[in-house]
Amino acid sequence: MSTVPSWPDAAPKAPSDSELESIHAWWRAANYLSVGQIYLMANPLLRDPLQREHVKPRLLGHWGTTPGLTFLYAHANRAIRQRGLKAMYITGPGHGGPGLVAASYLEGTYSEVYPAVGQDVDGLRRLFTQFSFPGGIPSHVAPETPGSIHEGGELGYALSHAYGAMMDRPDEIAFTVVGDGEAETGPLATSWHSNKFINPHTDGVVLPILHLNGYKIANPTVLARIPEDELADLMRGYGHTPLFFTGGFDDEDPVQTHRRFAEVLDEALDQIATIKKQAAKDAKADRTTERPAWPMIVFRSPKGWTGPKEIDGQKTEGSWRSHQVPLASARDTDEHLADLDRWLRSYEPEELFDEDGALRAEIAATAPEGELRMSANPATNGGVLRKDLRLPDFRDYTVDVQAPGGTIAEPTRVLGTWLRDVTAQNMDTFRIFGPDETASNRLQAVYDVTDKQWNAQFEDHDHAEHLAPTGRVMEMLSEHQCQGWLEGYLLTGRHGLFSSYEAFIHIVDSMVNQHAKWLKITNEIEWRAPISSLTYLLSSHVWRQDHNGFSHQDPGFIDHMVNKKAEVVRVYLPPDANTLLSTMDHCLRSKQYVNVVVAGKQPNPVWLNREDAITHCTRGLGIWEWAGTEVAGQEPDVVLACAGDIPTIETMAAAKILREKLPDLKVRVVNVVDLMRLQDDTEHPHGLSQRAFDGIFGEDIPVVFAYHGYPWLIHRLAYRHDRHSRIHVRGYKEEGTTTTPFDMLMRNDTDRYHLVMDVIDRVEGLGTAQAMLRQEMEDARVRARAYAYTHGTDIPEVADWQWGDGGDAPTAAPGVAAETGGDNE
Amino acid sequence: MSTVPSWPDAAPKAPSDSELESIHAWWRAANYLSVGQIYLMANPLLRDPLQREHVKPRLLGHWGTTPGLTFLYAHANRAIRQRGLKAMYITGPGHGGPGLVAASYLEGTYSEVYPAVGQDVDGLRRLFTQFSFPGGIPSHVAPETPGSIHEGGELGYALSHAYGAMMDRPDEIAFTVVGDGEAETGPLATSWHSNKFINPHTDGVVLPILHLNGYKIANPTVLARIPEDELADLMRGYGHTPLFFTGGFDDEDPVQTHRRFAEVLDEALDQIATIKKQAAKDAKADRTTERPAWPMIVFRSPKGWTGPKEIDGQKTEGSWRSHQVPLASARDTDEHLADLDRWLRSYEPEELFDEDGALRAEIAATAPEGELRMSANPATNGGVLRKDLRLPDFRDYTVDVQAPGGTIAEPTRVLGTWLRDVTAQNMDTFRIFGPDETASNRLQAVYDVTDKQWNAQFEDHDHAEHLAPTGRVMEMLSEHQCQGWLEGYLLTGRHGLFSSYEAFIHIVDSMVNQHAKWLKITNEIEWRAPISSLTYLLSSHVWRQDHNGFSHQDPGFIDHMVNKKAEVVRVYLPPDANTLLSTMDHCLRSKQYVNVVVAGKQPNPVWLNREDAITHCTRGLGIWEWAGTEVAGQEPDVVLACAGDIPTIETMAAAKILREKLPDLKVRVVNVVDLMRLQDDTEHPHGLSQRAFDGIFGEDIPVVFAYHGYPWLIHRLAYRHDRHSRIHVRGYKEEGTTTTPFDMLMRNDTDRYHLVMDVIDRVEGLGTAQAMLRQEMEDARVRARAYAYTHGTDIPEVADWQWGDGGDAPTAAPGVAAETGGDNE
Repeated sequence: MSTVPSWPDAAPKAPSDSELESIHAWWRAANYLSVGQIYLMANPLLRDPLQREHVKPRLLGHWGTTPGLTFLYAHANRAIRQRGLKAMYITGPGHGGPGLVAASYLEGTYSEVYPAVGQDVDGLRRLFTQFSFPGGIPSHVAPETPGSIHEGGELGYALSHAYGAMMDRPDEIAFTVVGDGEAETGPLATSWHSNKFINPHTDGVVLPILHLNGYKIANPTVLARIPEDELADLMRGYGHTPLFFTGGFDDEDPVQTHRRFAEVLDEALDQIATIKKQAAKDAKADRTTERPAWPMIVFRSPKGWTGPKEIDGQKTEGSWRSHQVPLASARDTDEHLADLDRWLRSYEPEELFDEDGALRAEIAATAPEGELRMSANPATNGGVLRKDLRLPDFRDYTVDVQAPGGTIAEPTRVLGTWLRDVTAQNMDTFRIFGPDETASNRLQAVYDVTDKQWNAQFEDHDHAEHLAPTGRVMEMLSEHQCQGWLEGYLLTGRHGLFSSYEAFIHIVDSMVNQHAKWLKITNEIEWRAPISSLTYLLSSHVWRQDHNGFSHQDPGFIDHMVNKKAEVVRVYLPPDANTLLSTMDHCLRSKQYVNVVVAGKQPNPVWLNREDAITHCTRGLGIWEWAGTEVAGQEPDVVLACAGDIPTIETMAAAKILREKLPDLKVRVVNVVDLMRLQDDTEHPHGLSQRAFDGIFGEDIPVVFAYHGYPWLIHRLAYRHDRHSRIHVRGYKEEGTTTTPFDMLMRNDTDRYHLVMDVIDRVEGLGTAQAMLRQEMEDARVRARAYAYTHGTDIPEVADWQWGDGGDAPTAAPGVAAETGGDNE
Repeated sequence: MSTVPSWPDAAPKAPSDSELESIHAWWRAANYLSVGQIYLMANPLLRDPLQREHVKPRLLGHWGTTPGLTFLYAHANRAIRQRGLKAMYITGPGHGGPGLVAASYLEGTYSEVYPAVGQDVDGLRRLFTQFSFPGGIPSHVAPETPGSIHEGGELGYALSHAYGAMMDRPDEIAFTVVGDGEAETGPLATSWHSNKFINPHTDGVVLPILHLNGYKIANPTVLARIPEDELADLMRGYGHTPLFFTGGFDDEDPVQTHRRFAEVLDEALDQIATIKKQAAKDAKADRTTERPAWPMIVFRSPKGWTGPKEIDGQKTEGSWRSHQVPLASARDTDEHLADLDRWLRSYEPEELFDEDGALRAEIAATAPEGELRMSANPATNGGVLRKDLRLPDFRDYTVDVQAPGGTIAEPTRVLGTWLRDVTAQNMDTFRIFGPDETASNRLQAVYDVTDKQWNAQFEDHDHAEHLAPTGRVMEMLSEHQCQGWLEGYLLTGRHGLFSSYEAFIHIVDSMVNQHAKWLKITNEIEWRAPISSLTYLLSSHVWRQDHNGFSHQDPGFIDHMVNKKAEVVRVYLPPDANTLLSTMDHCLRSKQYVNVVVAGKQPNPVWLNREDAITHCTRGLGIWEWAGTEVAGQEPDVVLACAGDIPTIETMAAAKILREKLPDLKVRVVNVVDLMRLQDDTEHPHGLSQRAFDGIFGEDIPVVFAYHGYPWLIHRLAYRHDRHSRIHVRGYKEEGTTTTPFDMLMRNDTDRYHLVMDVIDRVEGLGTAQAMLRQEMEDARVRARAYAYTHGTDIPEVADWQWGDGGDAPTAAPGVAAETGGDNE
């Protein structure tokens, strides 16, 4: 690893009154711009008397959390300037969109990326009008907001994102505001424990600031309504040193309020500097730094601080009534219009902006400059920092295959050898995340070169278990945490992989929704540079939950993902070890996608040699001529299609039965790796034209499709193709328990015998053989079930999970000619 | 509310040595049966020398957590007997399935519900063999396990389930074991805060026991690796009084270990008795009880306690190697077989079971009897306690409608008036759960009769905000928590409703998977009585996220649910207030379903009067003849179909345009309330036959379908119907931002103008009118967008969201004759 940059020396110098007054002015300016964005579409500096037509007809947005966010931003700025900190600002309460837009505008960043919104009266008018306006910008902190890596929609991920962003950024700090609403969510509640996984020397710093704003939409928050000593216990229990601040509830002189908070923030930053210095000293002496009790700040302020105290006689500042738009009738009633006028003028805009409408220079000077501005930190537009991974050639890791299915390999174990070298060659920029399953998923080769990073207590035998103070594998039993960390890591320009159970990846359904939305929007924002894809490796999949059974069976994450925008989502079902390697190589090179890769960890036949695997993955799907019995130039009688490793085995076995029992039947075998290929080319960039589709699946012959997941997904993907009702799909239909692997297939009618029966039922003119073979297949199913129920294991003829041993397989070279010369785009 | 039963008096009597010895014997028996289940398929009491063929060929299950669970169970039993407690046992670490099966077998419950598994040698053999065996029982705590309401699959919900189960059961206690693995999950981390919502007098008690087992699959756990004082801080911060126990790490005499734990448990139960007595006293004096610091126990024991210390020279007891099956080669190697033999005999089975193979009576006597057995607590088979809700007649709450669309109403506000009276009439058995949105979703009429239950600090103005120490509305900003509470409440025989944002209900995707699986399996278990359905009201839906925009838009929960078993899932999209009432009445009567109801809260036209609403909901879908222009006896030219309140408005508007502009076009309008009706009758019990489908959608005419959610779902549901490619679906295709409601529709091509264009593009022979009307529609779209972008509001012609005012609507009585006489099944 390269030398770790040192943390800036502490410079504890109490701010002067005039400094504090400048901070106060900057805060007023940010609040003024926030209120302006919510309400105004004209007369931005109130240089004319406020009229109803200056007010937007639809008032949309959230005021309540905003003034607290701007207050903290202003103070962070002072600290950055004074200490030379490299910082970003993570806004947990993302409803406060106007505050963060205001801050980036005041820092000049906004006008740099959106030149139409300049530092003048017209720019202000545009800034105000566009907010929550058709054709404008969203109401939340969003991809459109410079300096943000954290969409302010769904709550609960601020700390996970912050810690992910700070991994391997040892000289940076993330000021991370946690809303007391989001603090009630599960993901946030566990994300405090991130501090047990962060290395104080080689990673950056997260300073959590718990914003006790007091209220949600209609309720008080839990953490604002427990005694302060109980909250202090909670934070100490989470491993932090809490520092408390309360402001805004009385008539304290603002300068004094700012002074008190500056002291609290300085105390926190001094503690951090001490911790970082000690960690550097320990590293030099090759000592492990004991986990420090990092500071955090509890920041209590009234919801809607500096807003109207009362509206229509009802308490507003310090109440949930400040949550959204407190003066809902500002355009409709004189009273509300006057209230709004008073509120806006209370910030004294005439003192804040010069004649042209620009922030006065002496106030602007309270913010840092250049990339030290939190709104311009390049890590918050991580694509600009991103460098491609140094990837070892995956071809060197493939398994030798003499005949299709003639070699047996555990796909993820093979992948592990490549990932080991990917890790070793990218020690600063690649991490593997997962709840607890890197080894269980047989990727343990990575432990040859790295460890699991851990910063809680160590015991003697831990080192043998690959626990260490630094390491590229991050494991905590919270899919939310893993997802949040990885997102934060990717969003700041790095690379990673999420390895998990297929069923439980649904835990992050809602999180990945937000990430997919982020990617979709950033595709449309010119100044946002592309980031690395978020790649899932789902290895403990639905068909092999041998120890766990029904509760662990759910292949529906694929279904969930294909609802996202086509340009963002990719789904791969590599059938064996070699195609898995080729697929993952592609995924780790890609940008701006969510890649879902499903691949088993059990010993499976390898069907394709290196070249054929590359060709097959490049095409995404293809005819496996060597597996079928079709005659060149003739339309086959039936297509056996498959997607997924286990369905591929069953399809190969069904094809073998058909070859033996109905040698005259012309069977085509098709395997699908890239599920998106089944769509129409108007629906997805990977989709097939009707002509290409017919070329593979025939024009009007039956298709018996064995699919890894819920069968109707295949119909949903292929429905635009003509005559698709001829496609008959088998797959997991939610029938499971703790039983044998083959019994699982039989319960879902996806076993080889049933596939043969499906062919018999669909192909006409089979003659007398038909009924006999159907009966034979039914008998085979009965026998297989009876054997399992008696012996507890699968009947030997299927137990090997093989199409046959190598000797059974056609020895002719696979008939899939390389089309694109091994390119693995 | 009925009188609250009193808590049993404390009976703190230290157990004698012989009592402790009996507990130890019971524990050994439970552990013996657990190991037996994992390994043996014959020779259950080892009366013959152990042979390889006695060992199962596939060893599947989890040993690690089991002995801790059985230890705690044994001690809970002593407390139940001594104190007369009514108790249930919630097993967070559900991997420990064999332990809970063993406990219920030792208590006799298992043989009562499964007579084939009797209390003799043959019963033992069956008990052992069936575990994790084809045709047998799952490896986890499961619906098949008597006494369980908590599937041991996905982790993190033990406390939420326990608190939900204890609501309104004031004289019961849930011993709730929290695994230190699951304690890392987000949902579990926030569920500790449940104690801020529980009333100490009117609700039951949860005693959390944090089982510091030390290890997950391959890692130490976080909470086992922080200093004890930090963990104590954390628990105090969560509002608990922690009590610590460590056992099993040295050679302490077992009786002494049991004595020490009995003291800890007695201390906890004495504290609970004191709290309950105080709460009863306060209630009598009409005082609010201050939130008590309920006790909890930190129970530290080695993973795989009493199992082999070492296997193959590697530490096993007290290591992650105990997680699953420590002796993987027991059938294959002499060493492992001998190890297994030693391990099993270490429990001295000959001392535990009598000649017949039954547990010796003096050991059995350590467990309670009858319904005091935790495995036989009727609340854990809640259906047996469930009573139908007393439902006010929803017909009395419907909105008067003179002409279709002639009345405007906010559907959820109307529903609120009915829910108010549902609540009032079922004060002990009905609760409404939601993150923070009961009022936001306009159900606030319920606050006329109840409050939001809250037990954190109160402030003066809280009462006006409907916060109170008791109440039927449960709001915490954690969808996980709400879901877990509701599941616990339903599973123990009560009723409820979950009201939430449509987009963020994805947060519980994985939880509801588990619940749907539970329902599916319990449908197949004879002794499990049906429970109330889990009903979602998703009201802040995709089309009206005016303040929030893109991040809050996701209609995919419906897609997620329809992957579950058809017999478990129902999805309803009532188009107006009256159909919403009828739908919810049906849902709250139903059992064993997950009902998803999507309905807006904004003012919307009411299309159907009371009788027609009932008829329409009973049918699930139907032709709205009054809205179309079809001619009796003639096949229409086109069908305009719709599902969802906003698409219904657009469809009505499109029908109106077509009526005016193309008066000769025969248009049929179909509305779908029950989405499952679109399936084939072979796929879903609500599905339509091909004939019925054709009767509604015509045989081969174009269908333009405006759907609430992702359009492809309609194809996925209807794909089995013939000629379904003629169906053209519009819906949300992931295009959104903060904009006007009509612009949202335009962005997704689901607006009235686009629907008309879709008709024009699909109906042949329209003549010269076609091109002109198409251009007119395009112009209307351009105009609507331009207006919104300029004014910030929708163009007046669409802004009312109406089909037209009442005067525009056909005044003829709707042509849908009542078919089933108002029955609303």
